[in-house]
Amino acid sequence: MVDRTESYIDANQQRFVEELKQYMRFPSVSAQRAHDKDTRACAEWVVAHLKGLGFDAGLVDVGGQPIVRALMKGKSSKRVMIYGHYDVQPEDPVAEWKTPPFEPTIRDGILYGRGATDDKGQLWAHVKAVESLLKTEGELPCEVLFLLEGEEESGGDALPRYIRQAKAELKPDAIVISDSTMYDANTPALTYGLRGLIAMEFTIRGPAADVHSGAYGGGIANPAMMTAQILAACVSRDGKVLVPHFYDDVVPLQDWERESFRKLNFNDQAMAKELNIPRPHGEAGYSTLERLWARPTFEVNGLFGGYQGQRSKTIIPAWATAKITCRLVSNQDPARVHKLVVEHIRSVCPDTVRIEINDFGTSPPVLFDVNDPTIRAAQEAMRKGFGRETVFIRCGGSIPVVSTFAEHLGCPVILMGFGLDSDGPHGPNEHFSLDSFVKGTKSAAHMLRMI
Amino acid sequence: MVDRTESYIDANQQRFVEELKQYMRFPSVSAQRAHDKDTRACAEWVVAHLKGLGFDAGLVDVGGQPIVRALMKGKSSKRVMIYGHYDVQPEDPVAEWKTPPFEPTIRDGILYGRGATDDKGQLWAHVKAVESLLKTEGELPCEVLFLLEGEEESGGDALPRYIRQAKAELKPDAIVISDSTMYDANTPALTYGLRGLIAMEFTIRGPAADVHSGAYGGGIANPAMMTAQILAACVSRDGKVLVPHFYDDVVPLQDWERESFRKLNFNDQAMAKELNIPRPHGEAGYSTLERLWARPTFEVNGLFGGYQGQRSKTIIPAWATAKITCRLVSNQDPARVHKLVVEHIRSVCPDTVRIEINDFGTSPPVLFDVNDPTIRAAQEAMRKGFGRETVFIRCGGSIPVVSTFAEHLGCPVILMGFGLDSDGPHGPNEHFSLDSFVKGTKSAAHMLRMI
Repeated sequence: MVDRTESYIDANQQRFVEELKQYMRFPSVSAQRAHDKDTRACAEWVVAHLKGLGFDAGLVDVGGQPIVRALMKGKSSKRVMIYGHYDVQPEDPVAEWKTPPFEPTIRDGILYGRGATDDKGQLWAHVKAVESLLKTEGELPCEVLFLLEGEEESGGDALPRYIRQAKAELKPDAIVISDSTMYDANTPALTYGLRGLIAMEFTIRGPAADVHSGAYGGGIANPAMMTAQILAACVSRDGKVLVPHFYDDVVPLQDWERESFRKLNFNDQAMAKELNIPRPHGEAGYSTLERLWARPTFEVNGLFGGYQGQRSKTIIPAWATAKITCRLVSNQDPARVHKLVVEHIRSVCPDTVRIEINDFGTSPPVLFDVNDPTIRAAQEAMRKGFGRETVFIRCGGSIPVVSTFAEHLGCPVILMGFGLDSDGPHGPNEHFSLDSFVKGTKSAAHMLRMI
Repeated sequence: MVDRTESYIDANQQRFVEELKQYMRFPSVSAQRAHDKDTRACAEWVVAHLKGLGFDAGLVDVGGQPIVRALMKGKSSKRVMIYGHYDVQPEDPVAEWKTPPFEPTIRDGILYGRGATDDKGQLWAHVKAVESLLKTEGELPCEVLFLLEGEEESGGDALPRYIRQAKAELKPDAIVISDSTMYDANTPALTYGLRGLIAMEFTIRGPAADVHSGAYGGGIANPAMMTAQILAACVSRDGKVLVPHFYDDVVPLQDWERESFRKLNFNDQAMAKELNIPRPHGEAGYSTLERLWARPTFEVNGLFGGYQGQRSKTIIPAWATAKITCRLVSNQDPARVHKLVVEHIRSVCPDTVRIEINDFGTSPPVLFDVNDPTIRAAQEAMRKGFGRETVFIRCGGSIPVVSTFAEHLGCPVILMGFGLDSDGPHGPNEHFSLDSFVKGTKSAAHMLRMI
């Protein structure tokens, strides 16, 4: 059976891509004040385009870069909120781009340029899905609310502030985010779990200044050694976090998850080769993928104290610092885990030194129920759009906006990625497969009909 | 009974100090090429002065700064070699000097200026002791060989090279070094033990570049955490070195040493206050002084890897490095301990990362027999010169030249310090008590008669 909407997408894909290229030409680099004008111009261009499709669209200013908000009614009163971001990463390293970052170029069916996959290309699939439904069915099957921020790449908080203010009015029945990836080029995927995060640092202070290791060595605590000893008291050599009660609230992997992860045939050797490491490392009893997606971590992000120059300097450092992040999984509460970690660090630190602990914020983990009908509908839509089985995956990283949505808007969040890790988001020669763009557009259209 | 030599010293001390001031006016900063001319001029001035006293004196050039060598026969054929260095530390921080570093100034019986205590003032006591013996007794009681280097403050190796070349000809019966300190202002001391040193660093290498802690956290080894875990496997939280066989060759403290250290009433609280630490820390079963002087250590001098900026960065660092020194005590063999430490570090490092270890050299510990008649004679000489009981102490630091002497010249080395730790060697406002200078001169004269 021919799907008229799919046919429309096939017939118009060249124009869709030309429009996307226009969208990508805006250097909407939110991190750089020099691009503030371009960033706003980009947002205005999107608003104009959505208005052209019939949306009630405008910019919302709550400080920082403006938010694009566009609403259109549909056959049902069910409201699907589509999140995306119109800002992009800086173009560095410029010299490594084969074609200029803001002059989108197609080579061998791949669209190159900044924002191709992150996130202009992925968002454009949804915009063009909406157009295709309108042109082929006369109206949308449900209400669609676009909410596009301009500070995703610069860590701004305009969107979370807006969400908190406007939650009573936004009230979506489902949220769709296409700012993630498929499992691989042949495996469309929906992400149902994200890890959370706590970030902190501790500093161990010993003598007021670096002192001679001959004069004082053996007599006083060495802050660098103490830092190492405290860290080693937090994680065992085989990767188990030793903080008491750290794992208490971790939702164990379910049988279907272990089975489903196993079927993905994650290649340990390929990862080791890519990273140039001898082999993976971590908590016993879990596969690499299980550890990456479904287990919490305690990582040192930075470690420093004392002499960093050439050869040797015979000192006891005055202080040493360790920067730490823990990735969390459902149902770990970031505030509780933060407290457990701080208490443990303090408890293993002897009273022969002073310790300072700084907190750098938290982000909660999320885990969606894959049996939710909305998420099942999205899976079926993606299967149709890509013509392949669509799997459920988790993600080891954190997407703070998802936690914000989950916390304030209380509806299912569909993480429907059309990109690939290898698309080079944030790096030079960022790109997006036009085949994925077309299949993503079809998936997005099916989803609005099925949700 | 009046000692004519002591009377001569008392009568001439003002002139002695004026000469010392002349000596200190040379900015003989061996570390700075701009001062090479001054450094050589200083050496030449010393040679001329020693010639004036009747020495067969000259400069020995073996590359680097010249060595001052001066010999005079005496009543006995016993040869006492007096070591010193005519070079000094740079003057920094210049702004903190109350009077210019190279314009020696006396305030309240204290001589201020670069080199006052380290080592021009201490050496001058020996030169003036020799003069006083010559003027009052007509000849020296024994042969005296001055050997003064110009690279002590810049880590040059001219002297060790010369020692190795000339050892068959130097053949001293005793070596005297006055480049150390008394126990405190009221306690003259001879140093009979110095700690040795091994220095190294290890680097743990993980992924080829820093990677995202969300994407890879839990899946691969974290080089910073691994570095911490390795260090923690080398030293327990209560300060015991965990390297197998590390303590095997340590000569245990003898009863007289523990008793003698105890009598010095080392003040833990005073040290803690001076360093601004809560209290001392270290190996159980030993007093602070015992740990500082007679126990080996494993210290981290520097620790670095990953992000060192503000707040947080969610990475797994590509690598991390720890710089390590161990202080050794007799009879630990630096080469053997180095090997034990390297083997242990390798054995506790898992094969999920790569490790590199760099060696930065070693220096053996020394421990002299306090019952040696020469050392006993020096003790009695110092007791006479200072009019106080002279104690035997150890030193937590290392003086590489002492190991060189001990190894190549095979005779007792007398470490007869006239300075104090609080004299500020290497810092601004370096100074030397004129009272100690005079008493040191008397001690040096007595020693040449009694040795």
